[in-house]
Amino acid sequence: MKFKANVKVMLKPSVLDPQGATLERALKSMGHDNVSSIRVGKLIELVLESPDAQEAAKAANDWADRLLANPNMENYSLTLEPLT
Amino acid sequence: MKFKANVKVMLKPSVLDPQGATLERALKSMGHDNVSSIRVGKLIELVLESPDAQEAAKAANDWADRLLANPNMENYSLTLEPLT
Repeated sequence: MKFKANVKVMLKPSVLDPQGATLERALKSMGHDNVSSIRVGKLIELVLESPDAQEAAKAANDWADRLLANPNMENYSLTLEPLT
Repeated sequence: MKFKANVKVMLKPSVLDPQGATLERALKSMGHDNVSSIRVGKLIELVLESPDAQEAAKAANDWADRLLANPNMENYSLTLEPLT
């Protein structure tokens, strides 16, 4: 059975986000003073084949822990949906 | 009124994604042959102040078009939620 996993990886709130700060400065310099708190993260989409949803979630969490996210600086959240 | 916008920016399907290809190779080299179609995108979270949801959506779409996404290579989708 195939599943699609979406792994959302964001820098921890305590970690400085220079990319977000740059975007915020750019928007403000374009005259948009109503913007704040820009954070830039990664979104990783993948398809995995697994006998059931539980195994798929286990595998995707394992990959996120070990490869996709840096646990020192980033948090991740994961959603999984079956592909028909 | 404050709104939180989430802008999901992904490379167009026709555009090669070297970062995704590298992750896929890494997972396969770790023995995970059940993974495929990895794509890596950006997720931009921001807070904007706007009189109503319609204005907020208009502003966020405008910013995504002009700054956050590269319309030549990327697609984006946007969600907006009011912050209490």
